[in-house]
Amino acid sequence: MNKRSFASDNNAGVHPQVMDALQKCNVGHVIGYGDDPYTQRTIELFKHHFGKQTGVYFVYGGTGANVTGLQVMLKPFQAVLCAETAHINVDECGAPEKFTGCKLITISTSDGKLRIEQLEPFLHMLGFEHHVQPGVISITQPTEMGTVYSLEEIRRIADFAHQNRMLLHMDGARLANAAVHLNLPFKAFTSEAGVDVLSFGGTKNGLMFGEAVLIFNQKLQPDFKYIRKQGMQLHSKMRYIAAQFEAYLTNDLWKKNAQQANAMAQLLAQKVSEIEEIKITQPVQTNGVFAIVPGEIIEPLRNEYFFYTWNTGKNEVRWMTSFDTTEQDVEQFVATLKRILKNYLT
Amino acid sequence: MNKRSFASDNNAGVHPQVMDALQKCNVGHVIGYGDDPYTQRTIELFKHHFGKQTGVYFVYGGTGANVTGLQVMLKPFQAVLCAETAHINVDECGAPEKFTGCKLITISTSDGKLRIEQLEPFLHMLGFEHHVQPGVISITQPTEMGTVYSLEEIRRIADFAHQNRMLLHMDGARLANAAVHLNLPFKAFTSEAGVDVLSFGGTKNGLMFGEAVLIFNQKLQPDFKYIRKQGMQLHSKMRYIAAQFEAYLTNDLWKKNAQQANAMAQLLAQKVSEIEEIKITQPVQTNGVFAIVPGEIIEPLRNEYFFYTWNTGKNEVRWMTSFDTTEQDVEQFVATLKRILKNYLT
Amino acid sequence: MNKRSFASDNNAGVHPQVMDALQKCNVGHVIGYGDDPYTQRTIELFKHHFGKQTGVYFVYGGTGANVTGLQVMLKPFQAVLCAETAHINVDECGAPEKFTGCKLITISTSDGKLRIEQLEPFLHMLGFEHHVQPGVISITQPTEMGTVYSLEEIRRIADFAHQNRMLLHMDGARLANAAVHLNLPFKAFTSEAGVDVLSFGGTKNGLMFGEAVLIFNQKLQPDFKYIRKQGMQLHSKMRYIAAQFEAYLTNDLWKKNAQQANAMAQLLAQKVSEIEEIKITQPVQTNGVFAIVPGEIIEPLRNEYFFYTWNTGKNEVRWMTSFDTTEQDVEQFVATLKRILKNYLT
Amino acid sequence: MNKRSFASDNNAGVHPQVMDALQKCNVGHVIGYGDDPYTQRTIELFKHHFGKQTGVYFVYGGTGANVTGLQVMLKPFQAVLCAETAHINVDECGAPEKFTGCKLITISTSDGKLRIEQLEPFLHMLGFEHHVQPGVISITQPTEMGTVYSLEEIRRIADFAHQNRMLLHMDGARLANAAVHLNLPFKAFTSEAGVDVLSFGGTKNGLMFGEAVLIFNQKLQPDFKYIRKQGMQLHSKMRYIAAQFEAYLTNDLWKKNAQQANAMAQLLAQKVSEIEEIKITQPVQTNGVFAIVPGEIIEPLRNEYFFYTWNTGKNEVRWMTSFDTTEQDVEQFVATLKRILKNYLT
Repeated sequence: MNKRSFASDNNAGVHPQVMDALQKCNVGHVIGYGDDPYTQRTIELFKHHFGKQTGVYFVYGGTGANVTGLQVMLKPFQAVLCAETAHINVDECGAPEKFTGCKLITISTSDGKLRIEQLEPFLHMLGFEHHVQPGVISITQPTEMGTVYSLEEIRRIADFAHQNRMLLHMDGARLANAAVHLNLPFKAFTSEAGVDVLSFGGTKNGLMFGEAVLIFNQKLQPDFKYIRKQGMQLHSKMRYIAAQFEAYLTNDLWKKNAQQANAMAQLLAQKVSEIEEIKITQPVQTNGVFAIVPGEIIEPLRNEYFFYTWNTGKNEVRWMTSFDTTEQDVEQFVATLKRILKNYLT
Repeated sequence: MNKRSFASDNNAGVHPQVMDALQKCNVGHVIGYGDDPYTQRTIELFKHHFGKQTGVYFVYGGTGANVTGLQVMLKPFQAVLCAETAHINVDECGAPEKFTGCKLITISTSDGKLRIEQLEPFLHMLGFEHHVQPGVISITQPTEMGTVYSLEEIRRIADFAHQNRMLLHMDGARLANAAVHLNLPFKAFTSEAGVDVLSFGGTKNGLMFGEAVLIFNQKLQPDFKYIRKQGMQLHSKMRYIAAQFEAYLTNDLWKKNAQQANAMAQLLAQKVSEIEEIKITQPVQTNGVFAIVPGEIIEPLRNEYFFYTWNTGKNEVRWMTSFDTTEQDVEQFVATLKRILKNYLT
Repeated sequence: MNKRSFASDNNAGVHPQVMDALQKCNVGHVIGYGDDPYTQRTIELFKHHFGKQTGVYFVYGGTGANVTGLQVMLKPFQAVLCAETAHINVDECGAPEKFTGCKLITISTSDGKLRIEQLEPFLHMLGFEHHVQPGVISITQPTEMGTVYSLEEIRRIADFAHQNRMLLHMDGARLANAAVHLNLPFKAFTSEAGVDVLSFGGTKNGLMFGEAVLIFNQKLQPDFKYIRKQGMQLHSKMRYIAAQFEAYLTNDLWKKNAQQANAMAQLLAQKVSEIEEIKITQPVQTNGVFAIVPGEIIEPLRNEYFFYTWNTGKNEVRWMTSFDTTEQDVEQFVATLKRILKNYLT
Repeated sequence: MNKRSFASDNNAGVHPQVMDALQKCNVGHVIGYGDDPYTQRTIELFKHHFGKQTGVYFVYGGTGANVTGLQVMLKPFQAVLCAETAHINVDECGAPEKFTGCKLITISTSDGKLRIEQLEPFLHMLGFEHHVQPGVISITQPTEMGTVYSLEEIRRIADFAHQNRMLLHMDGARLANAAVHLNLPFKAFTSEAGVDVLSFGGTKNGLMFGEAVLIFNQKLQPDFKYIRKQGMQLHSKMRYIAAQFEAYLTNDLWKKNAQQANAMAQLLAQKVSEIEEIKITQPVQTNGVFAIVPGEIIEPLRNEYFFYTWNTGKNEVRWMTSFDTTEQDVEQFVATLKRILKNYLT
């Protein structure tokens, strides 16, 4: 597959500066499991971005970040309130339930974003032993539909959680894309807005592997190292995760990459919105474009550019851009799309 | 830390040929989660080494490989019989119990190797509902003490397992070092000897990350992909694991690396055995040297070369060699050891 | 509390014939855990009612019956499809997820009954490792809203399940009440209709404690005894569960009790339906009456007769009748209700 | 089986006063799940015996009591230190691991009793993320071998636990028998000695079903009601457990029953100790006699009196007495034993 795909931002490769960092740290022996200078340095860099009190823990991947992050927040009889479309609910093969033993209570939304009014009815469960006890609210930023919670929305959910003895978890697999959209520093809409635990992803924005669990709630920090190991997420050669994140957080690489991806999604959305037969279904705020397309074109288009159908019943598809998507890529893709539309709809 | 350490083979870096492979595969977009040409090619390479029927599944790390491999073999009321010193029992923070819910039944050994006579008494548990039901025997090859099961020993344990409706799991985090010691191809003492599921490691022998779960028992194969994802071990950018293993299994890189590590352990053992105050406690068959040393020297030696104490009560320490350990490294280490012995024991 | 309550059928006591049976079996020593003549005899009685091939396993309670019954049907990455209102989803404090590690996928219904059209969309998950795999459909008969699946509806769900490699679980906490409504023998709408595993309850219909897990699918039988013990549901003095069920299944005690409870619910529904301010919300097919009432009367009525609010937002309440509810009880309750309505709505 | 057995104290029936209490409470309706006067009264009675601050929670059985009691004490990465012979380790089909996900670390003992010196080596695990963290010490009082911890021994283990941030769990399935041996009130060697959570059994001493989890550590109390329900141990018709315990704790019924059982074990031990071919292997402190017998007699004796072999390899058997064992029962059993010895050993 030589063409750059619009299937997922994880179809892209590793950013050259990240690859460089991997090579540069490949010198000599260092102690395993994080007791090395690369890891220590990168932890400081994270604290710079998220606040001095941040607990920084590298893990292997996004599912592992979410599941171990939730585990440290939950008692066994507590439940997680999340959107029906949340990655933790739909795309992790039940890993949260399997590992934590806790229930996810799902809430139907139009755009992947939870509202306070949807959370309130679950308060009636509190105190009754027959019901699981809502203990964590989990939001995805940006959501799985590419939409972004505003700073105000996050603050309100965090306050609601804390007022009701719950904690706030944020799945930030694509956090950089949200930061670019909000034009805010990371800490403004995470640690400072009341998030307790954050999954901070990089793989979808130019890293090879590795994710960070950032724990802002200090009471939760001491236990996490055990949960990370027990959750099969402790890498022995930790420097190779740390070095990637160091590159990522240096010279705004994270921002440049996310800006490019977001901009290309805007471009794609703009061009696609001019096509009558296609209807964009979600505000394009980050690097995904969701659209309803004529069913007949899905297969032929996919033969040329692999992508995922989001909602089979509605012929809704998802097109993702990446840090390395170019204007030319978008133009070629749209040209292909138009050609196929023409061929299949007459 | 500029000196090469004798703490663990995971303190070493990535072999240059592996790093090269990572860079070479970093071209363009490919589909995620393993549906890419690198992964497909490397799976074929594994089948060449382990047999055509082998199910090949890449995961993130060794604990994840062991736990997901055990999960696919176990019903919830079954137990794993393993040595008390097994990595799954001692060094995985309870991940096997947490994820599978199953009990580990541990057996005390002198050298990390299980014997049939030690397994037989557990057969009396079969059929009684009050007891967990032994379902899997797990052996480590080479063991955590660096000792190696002979082909005959593996065959006998496999037969014993299968005759009693159990399955055989092998933790092969350092399998290459065992293969070099046995001077046998991988398949001879794994798939062909009756192993059902194997954790095949590379990180301790020159890889950056990634491990393979090899499933020889075909009945277990269909479920594994779900267990891998649920076990938080499915990497999205799979090509970067595959490419490493491709390099590892090409031109005998795995063998050259293991030969060097094993040879350096022999050299170290030989030199250390000449020192009166030090007593080697295990046969040196792979890349670890276990020795009882005068307690007074542990701390000063560790200040110069980090390493782990294996058994605090006995002042037993573990020194590991790596693929990149040189004769000069060994000589320097032994010289330091002698100097410290002289300083602290007079 | 001297008045008979309309809160729940578990507020009633033990039927005198059951109490008698408990006393009669209290003679001498018998072997524990079910290897006694009472248990053997009662198992035969169950086989008479449900078919010769039925596996009969006594457990302590309804939650335990459901959870262990589901456990034997599920692989760890599989999910249970059930109604949002299912007892396993709402009222077991997350026991199914905690014990099995599996996800419940909930479906919104108006009357607690699942329809094939609601199940079909979940078939698209099959085969994709990112998603849990639907493995079990769980229905409650009668449902938590007192409604009853027809024989034809059960058959269709069973066929759908089996055609798609799923299994059918039935929560029959009040199965006798459904049997009376359907006017069918137990086996007709359970084992013979395609149910794989049934929770058969008695506590809500005159027993003191104890429930039976009936396994019609013979492949699932051998493992269950271990799961029962591991699920903390194996009673040592088993004769005291067996003797109760023997009385229950003898001389149609189960039927007489359920007939009385159902008839009293009909009477209550009829009388209540004449009251303008009250709206019955579900067909009254078994022993529960669901009704929307003026919010103001809930507390004063509850002070005289304890009962549960089903849906706080809608002022929907649940009134249950029991095997020992009399016509006079219903009349007194309705009189109280009318008095309070009069006092509070003027 | 007309003869009273020496197999287990759970082969006995229900004490007549307990049966009486069950009948007396079988009047009218009461609210379910413990909000009834019987339960409230019995909770007060427990507080009288164990201290005002005691949290009292009824559950169905002994395994459920142990597992839910442990669950409330454990974080997921913590482990339980217990004797190899502990019921939780040997006879609960892995329920503790399955439900809590935590590891049991077992310690070999000669008499079922843990010593501080055996616990100390596990302290080295604390703080290392590769190892599970010892969080609970679980002792059985009396032990599974019938031996009894002295008050001083319990206090020392409790202090050791608390000094090292662990908690102390006691499995008191036969606590009354220990109390009689120690000639101490319950609270002296439980709540006041530093036990955090106690499983208080009655079924082996004349009850029909039901066990109590007593939580002395007040920090652990608020969560337990959820864990009990999630652990499938919340009985709806709670009065029938409460009424039994009320009878049990009234007029010293618990003590009279245990005195009889203990006295009969003494008698049996005395008579058996006079037989040359039989060797008693444990001090007889409660209601069990452990003895090594000639292997040839096990089967013929078992054909007349069912009992369990404790250690097959050593021909060690266990004979238990019950609250209803009489001197005549013992004499008959010993006569039978002697007859068989004579017949089979010549």
